[in-house]
Amino acid sequence: MKNKIKKVGVLTSGGDSPGMNAAIRAVVRACSYYQLEAYGIYRGYEGLIEADFIGLTARSVKNIIHKGGTFLKSARSPQFRTEEGQEQAYRNLIEQGIDALVVIGGDGTFAGAKAFGDTYKFPIIGIPGTIDNDIQGTDYTIGYDTALNTAVEAIDKIRDTANSHNRLFLVEVMGRNAGDIALNAGIGAGAEEILIPEENLGIERLLESLDRSRKSGKTSSIVVVSEGDQIGKNIFELADYIKENKKDYDVRVTVLGHIQRGGSPSCYDRVLASRLGVGAIQALLENKQGCMVGINHNQVVEVPFSSTTSGSNYIDKSLLKVADIISI
Amino acid sequence: MKNKIKKVGVLTSGGDSPGMNAAIRAVVRACSYYQLEAYGIYRGYEGLIEADFIGLTARSVKNIIHKGGTFLKSARSPQFRTEEGQEQAYRNLIEQGIDALVVIGGDGTFAGAKAFGDTYKFPIIGIPGTIDNDIQGTDYTIGYDTALNTAVEAIDKIRDTANSHNRLFLVEVMGRNAGDIALNAGIGAGAEEILIPEENLGIERLLESLDRSRKSGKTSSIVVVSEGDQIGKNIFELADYIKENKKDYDVRVTVLGHIQRGGSPSCYDRVLASRLGVGAIQALLENKQGCMVGINHNQVVEVPFSSTTSGSNYIDKSLLKVADIISI
Amino acid sequence: MKNKIKKVGVLTSGGDSPGMNAAIRAVVRACSYYQLEAYGIYRGYEGLIEADFIGLTARSVKNIIHKGGTFLKSARSPQFRTEEGQEQAYRNLIEQGIDALVVIGGDGTFAGAKAFGDTYKFPIIGIPGTIDNDIQGTDYTIGYDTALNTAVEAIDKIRDTANSHNRLFLVEVMGRNAGDIALNAGIGAGAEEILIPEENLGIERLLESLDRSRKSGKTSSIVVVSEGDQIGKNIFELADYIKENKKDYDVRVTVLGHIQRGGSPSCYDRVLASRLGVGAIQALLENKQGCMVGINHNQVVEVPFSSTTSGSNYIDKSLLKVADIISI
Amino acid sequence: MKNKIKKVGVLTSGGDSPGMNAAIRAVVRACSYYQLEAYGIYRGYEGLIEADFIGLTARSVKNIIHKGGTFLKSARSPQFRTEEGQEQAYRNLIEQGIDALVVIGGDGTFAGAKAFGDTYKFPIIGIPGTIDNDIQGTDYTIGYDTALNTAVEAIDKIRDTANSHNRLFLVEVMGRNAGDIALNAGIGAGAEEILIPEENLGIERLLESLDRSRKSGKTSSIVVVSEGDQIGKNIFELADYIKENKKDYDVRVTVLGHIQRGGSPSCYDRVLASRLGVGAIQALLENKQGCMVGINHNQVVEVPFSSTTSGSNYIDKSLLKVADIISI
Repeated sequence: MKNKIKKVGVLTSGGDSPGMNAAIRAVVRACSYYQLEAYGIYRGYEGLIEADFIGLTARSVKNIIHKGGTFLKSARSPQFRTEEGQEQAYRNLIEQGIDALVVIGGDGTFAGAKAFGDTYKFPIIGIPGTIDNDIQGTDYTIGYDTALNTAVEAIDKIRDTANSHNRLFLVEVMGRNAGDIALNAGIGAGAEEILIPEENLGIERLLESLDRSRKSGKTSSIVVVSEGDQIGKNIFELADYIKENKKDYDVRVTVLGHIQRGGSPSCYDRVLASRLGVGAIQALLENKQGCMVGINHNQVVEVPFSSTTSGSNYIDKSLLKVADIISI
Repeated sequence: MKNKIKKVGVLTSGGDSPGMNAAIRAVVRACSYYQLEAYGIYRGYEGLIEADFIGLTARSVKNIIHKGGTFLKSARSPQFRTEEGQEQAYRNLIEQGIDALVVIGGDGTFAGAKAFGDTYKFPIIGIPGTIDNDIQGTDYTIGYDTALNTAVEAIDKIRDTANSHNRLFLVEVMGRNAGDIALNAGIGAGAEEILIPEENLGIERLLESLDRSRKSGKTSSIVVVSEGDQIGKNIFELADYIKENKKDYDVRVTVLGHIQRGGSPSCYDRVLASRLGVGAIQALLENKQGCMVGINHNQVVEVPFSSTTSGSNYIDKSLLKVADIISI
Repeated sequence: MKNKIKKVGVLTSGGDSPGMNAAIRAVVRACSYYQLEAYGIYRGYEGLIEADFIGLTARSVKNIIHKGGTFLKSARSPQFRTEEGQEQAYRNLIEQGIDALVVIGGDGTFAGAKAFGDTYKFPIIGIPGTIDNDIQGTDYTIGYDTALNTAVEAIDKIRDTANSHNRLFLVEVMGRNAGDIALNAGIGAGAEEILIPEENLGIERLLESLDRSRKSGKTSSIVVVSEGDQIGKNIFELADYIKENKKDYDVRVTVLGHIQRGGSPSCYDRVLASRLGVGAIQALLENKQGCMVGINHNQVVEVPFSSTTSGSNYIDKSLLKVADIISI
Repeated sequence: MKNKIKKVGVLTSGGDSPGMNAAIRAVVRACSYYQLEAYGIYRGYEGLIEADFIGLTARSVKNIIHKGGTFLKSARSPQFRTEEGQEQAYRNLIEQGIDALVVIGGDGTFAGAKAFGDTYKFPIIGIPGTIDNDIQGTDYTIGYDTALNTAVEAIDKIRDTANSHNRLFLVEVMGRNAGDIALNAGIGAGAEEILIPEENLGIERLLESLDRSRKSGKTSSIVVVSEGDQIGKNIFELADYIKENKKDYDVRVTVLGHIQRGGSPSCYDRVLASRLGVGAIQALLENKQGCMVGINHNQVVEVPFSSTTSGSNYIDKSLLKVADIISI
């Protein structure tokens, strides 16, 4: 059966992540390579509903592979969760002649894609773009590696000042309900303790651990705290609690915040985005749909949208053990 | 009169800043060059009181010029403000045979140095080391240039995500009561508005300005807020106020925090630190004391401690005008 | 007399430097602020001769303050040195209604501007944009500070590997006939020796100095070599000479090259570019012409083109002394 | 059988790579965790022969995880390839009571380890530390990810200036006989062509490809050239050949050189180094020897030294295809 796809729309949705531009570029250039037309859709599903389209050629996406953010802009679209919203989006696609979509984003993006694709039998391929690395079926998501480097570089700077003053720093990193950023950035930054959603150390064991660090001769400490951790206090309350219970600690808090979403993507994220962008178009040409292209042991794979999310996050126990050992 | 100085102590005090290590290195190597002995004093005036000294040679300070923080560590010392504390510090110096001090820090450090030097007729030279650039008599303080670059690089990353989502970001930078970091980082980062302690724009004018930005076609905005600004609300309250009064704004807050104190010093800060470190020893050899070595139009100058602080901070009006013009 | 200027052309010429985009942005926005029309001219004087113009508004220059290079592109134009070339350029300007020019570049650019402005009585303001810092009448040129940081960061990386292997590295930096980059990057990177055009150490003294370094306990060394140095051998020949005469040295060469021209501008360069861009338009509005706007002790100043170049480069002797002392 | 290992020596050998310090740290801290004594051996096998040992505790390796290079220094040791050298090394180990070795390096290092371990029945575990990623049996080697980022950041800077001048840049990257750095950095940097050892494009096809790039509207080009490429000309000769055959090309050459070996390791390399360092000690405790610990699909694995090298390098054909498509 000959593949009928002629025009492909591409959009970025949800929280932006470094490498999204590289992914768009790869999608557009793969379209060009395989002689398909490419259309950019602005602001995710919002732009789909508002028919905010732009024709893209191989030259339109020059000089963006190294840029953070997404030039197509991103948004969350409550309207796309309604029947009317989806209906309008479908009409716009038909009118424009777009016969397939590539959506770059996280689990919310994929849920929307699955619902829309199922209802309208519309071919959609997803590309995992989020710093949180919380998508099942792919070893890595686009932006995660860059966010790790951004977090680690920031904590390196904080350590300079922590060391100069014999201080305890609590540093909050992103990751929503996934501890991947905290655990890996914590190991990479040489943190004394790492608080992640997947494992509740308990506040008393944290204090004991800090005491042990002191006794072992450490004069300053970094505790990396995932934004989704389960310790039951936000990071400022946690700092207050420590100050109350450990009078001699000079405790400071830094919330790294949105710097983790920006910045020029790392080489890994650029290459990953390039592979998945090309892979998405190749999948469409092979009549695949309703799935994400991900990376599995360095090979591009296709995973049905239904298998991309899961209730409980996987955390590598051996990595927790490594974190324990090297912070001795 | 022949100079009698034989042993020089060097310490870092107050908030640490990038380039302090480069300054210590220059002090120690200048001692070596001029055949003086150098002693490091740990944790600022604390270490002076506790006689926490270490002999330093030219080789002791190798491989530190590029490192943030201060390997001598820094602290604030309430005890050094007491007569007993100063008396003890003096006895320790005499006992160790140290006959001159170089102190690296900000105005608090210099105030302590002045009091001590006046009381005990002890030769002290100050070197301005603070990211805040709030010392009179020197065009730049060590660490300021690096902090500007750190702030601007962080805001560049935030702008990636601001642009991707059409958001308004409030970004708090350091600087205590001086607006230099906010004003220069704000200009450098292309901020739409900059709130500094030296000029109270007023909250209503801020809202008007944001409206004007929108009307001129800007889809995202960065407002850089100095930690010492006079708008009468902290940055989170300010965000809430904007959200209440501008319902359609998607407002986010980032407090850059202590990353601004760390990091590898910029070339400018390394060269400045090297010049002032050498200049401090040369000043001692010329029997100067009770003064800071600073930089004035690219020349090393000596400024009495009494002229290094001032009630009101100077802000360059032409720079405010530039900020206004280029954010049009 | 009322100022008649209505349309301003802006171009970048000669070697590009980081911050040129920030300068263009400031020129365009100052035009907008003072209600002048702005035109970009592509590829320097080439585009002037070919009438390659583009209208620019405040929004055209958004999101470029942090980008290296120049979006107007740059070129060297032999044709502009001919009478015909200049004549054609003048006709194009008249035809387009452009009544003043802002040219961003180095001494070659200014020489062309002076010749053209004198011949056709055409108002031109220059802005110093070059990494070499070799323009008289301004303390700093746009791009110089960034190039220093790029060089120092690169040499920091080289030092990692030099230290790991007890090696001698010769590192060539840019600067044409000016030693500013080499001298400052050399001090900032902790180089053992620095070879600059303004001072010929002599090859034998270099060998002696390296010997002294060894004897003082240094196990690895960095020698920073300016591309315009006067030692009489290119850097590869120099390496060979050292290897022949010092058999036990493990000598390596790195030519930093064009990475020094690119990269996101430092905060200093962005602010400087913003100030000079605004200053250029303000100067035009005050009927100034035939001059460069530069920075002198942190104030914007105007300097006639005839005073912007000079036969012999100035080098601060005290800085050479500092370099000597801190490499002990 | 109870494990008898009590004292572990660790060394770095061959070309240094970012993350070696992180690996040493993990080895030493894992020793501390499992109550083994750790000894550092300076300058690789050289220090083994010269008995240049140092006792290391958990605190000895603080504050090094983020540092490039190797504080134990590295060297190549021709003497260790002789019977006498190995004999002397063995005597030193016995004398010091060291009963196992962890060697961090590349294939040369592992070859030496295999020979020594086989002859003296001495337990040795290898850790792959090289930027070249040319070790079989591990998906990644320590330092490779950092080198990619360093290369890509440098090429980003070069692209700024390439774009400003419509130039063709030839950029040489490291990698010895492996094209991994060139291929991945080339994709990540958006290179138009990539020359690697594993695939000889041929010089005429390169020229054709550059012509096609021009015709497709590209005004500047980057060609990434692996140091081990098979095109038959070194990079300067290649530039000359292009200039002769394509008169209108403005061709420049940059050899990135040793900056690729240095720099603060990426988060990935720090985590990888931490995992493998811990894994090496765990392997020794399980009586493993004569093998490398590597990473395979994100799991630590053990691979006999005999399987870590191979005649022909593997290159992922799908990645070559991606490179082709996205440079359209």
